[in-house]
Amino acid sequence: MNTHKEVAADGFVIVGEEICQKIISRADAFGAVEAVFAAMARGDAYNFPVVREAIGHADALYGFKGGFDRSGLSLGLKAGGYWPGNMDKGLTNHQSTVFLFDPDTGRLSALVGGNYLTAIRTAASSSVSIAHLARKDAKVLGMVGAGHQSAFQLRAAVEQRPFEKVVAWNPHPDMLPRLGAVAKELGLEFEAVTQEELGAQADVIITITSAFEPLMMADWVKPGTHIACMGTDTKGKQEVDPALFARATVFADEIAQSITIGEAQHAVGKGLIAEGDITPIGAVINGTHAGRSNAEEITLFDGTGVGLQDLAVASVAAKLAREQGLVTPITLG
Amino acid sequence: MNTHKEVAADGFVIVGEEICQKIISRADAFGAVEAVFAAMARGDAYNFPVVREAIGHADALYGFKGGFDRSGLSLGLKAGGYWPGNMDKGLTNHQSTVFLFDPDTGRLSALVGGNYLTAIRTAASSSVSIAHLARKDAKVLGMVGAGHQSAFQLRAAVEQRPFEKVVAWNPHPDMLPRLGAVAKELGLEFEAVTQEELGAQADVIITITSAFEPLMMADWVKPGTHIACMGTDTKGKQEVDPALFARATVFADEIAQSITIGEAQHAVGKGLIAEGDITPIGAVINGTHAGRSNAEEITLFDGTGVGLQDLAVASVAAKLAREQGLVTPITLG
Repeated sequence: MNTHKEVAADGFVIVGEEICQKIISRADAFGAVEAVFAAMARGDAYNFPVVREAIGHADALYGFKGGFDRSGLSLGLKAGGYWPGNMDKGLTNHQSTVFLFDPDTGRLSALVGGNYLTAIRTAASSSVSIAHLARKDAKVLGMVGAGHQSAFQLRAAVEQRPFEKVVAWNPHPDMLPRLGAVAKELGLEFEAVTQEELGAQADVIITITSAFEPLMMADWVKPGTHIACMGTDTKGKQEVDPALFARATVFADEIAQSITIGEAQHAVGKGLIAEGDITPIGAVINGTHAGRSNAEEITLFDGTGVGLQDLAVASVAAKLAREQGLVTPITLG
Repeated sequence: MNTHKEVAADGFVIVGEEICQKIISRADAFGAVEAVFAAMARGDAYNFPVVREAIGHADALYGFKGGFDRSGLSLGLKAGGYWPGNMDKGLTNHQSTVFLFDPDTGRLSALVGGNYLTAIRTAASSSVSIAHLARKDAKVLGMVGAGHQSAFQLRAAVEQRPFEKVVAWNPHPDMLPRLGAVAKELGLEFEAVTQEELGAQADVIITITSAFEPLMMADWVKPGTHIACMGTDTKGKQEVDPALFARATVFADEIAQSITIGEAQHAVGKGLIAEGDITPIGAVINGTHAGRSNAEEITLFDGTGVGLQDLAVASVAAKLAREQGLVTPITLG
């Protein structure tokens, strides 16, 4: 277990986006996210109620995702949201900043740019699910979605299994070559396919879209597949056929969020599964749930994205930046 | 109306506690708090749901108070809380930091130390209520409570009416001389009195304690008094007799908070008044409610403390600090 307590005794540090990109490896993100999922399942870490507001200005969605991990001693929040007009200003639409506090004193200990962290912690999440749930002999990775985030998911996923090939589908096919280039860079064969073909070939599937309707039907997915649904984080969003939940053994980062704003909202809403049918991925990490039980089982991970993931990777970033002398503590007085 | 839009185009600024103390005048705080109360009553500003968590570490209470003022263009939150063990470490128990975001892009625009700001915005709140609700001829100010915050309330209050004398009571009488020294510095007569005597003499009363039981009974308060209840910000806390609400015309900073965690929780809980009997102070500021109607009326202001107050004074601090060249913008990348 990683413990990266941020101390504010000598002031807080500012860790910008560039430093985050330089110092946080995929292995760091994997370790931090795996540890905090485990802490959540043990009851050592919990997420606070999420604040999410349509502020009625610039069509923005803004809010806070906070939490406390008393084993990792991460306390704080990610603040920010979605500004759809940013692209026209040369900024990314998703904007966020992570604030860490010293749990012993309540003083600010670190301010960490949240844009890159959000991308790598989301990638680490499906990667952790693959490490703990996918078949060891998985060879073909299916990518549903080819937007900005998909490359992060791909790079993190291929480190977990001996993948040889990537099959991909995207609502806008013109975006596929960019993802194909990443696959080739990683030494993997790449093929743009139909959704049905993707299900027929893939041993592991990652869905990473902003869809509001099922893109993968239950009977397109072959036995033994592990599927990580990473795109749904709001009421109404949807990536896969709810019937797939009834066929699969279902895991989630946080069950409460999974059934309300995650992919499971639809299957639970239709009565196809109940809350009790979902296992926190942390239980598999902790060994209190066996995970995959046989080679034919379909495992499904609902990755909704929790504040504690952001705090965990931000804590590592702040710790490494301090250790490497990349930041100078500042006091607020 | 003050508009202090924080822009992040050139980066965010850090405004420490010392700069806040140097640049924010009581008049600045008064103007900012009065403007945001007015915006709230017009529906131009609203507070987000408050997150408040007993984190199970260091006996701390931690959380976030956020909001958006679309007339003043303040967006963000105050994060922090109460760490009871801090005093032993030479730190104040209340610790907070305000984070402002550019409402056009979602980027961090300012990080402002929240400890001094909390003190002056709380003082400005009762001061605004006195300006708009107390009798013009008020001469005697009654202070219930003599802790750290009481001096802030006193200094702000005496600027609103031609006070000549301060009468004070505190659960621990040994703290009264310190408040007496402030009164004398301000050229005011000071008398330590019983609670009954305080009610009999005072034209304006401010309660600023951490009490969990009524310290002022309804029949101790004379006709024409204005009373600002500033201490109750949690379920269970209480400063005055609920029967006083039935005798008084009741105002609040935010009604939703007043009836749940403010002083009005008790009177509403006992059915002595209803939610509809409480008027937002902003309506008086905006002129849509006349405020005090006659010289014999008792007016009561329930000042619960809202996130928008913090954002409003922090926005002024950041603006002044930029204008005066006291801060250097930093980019997160």
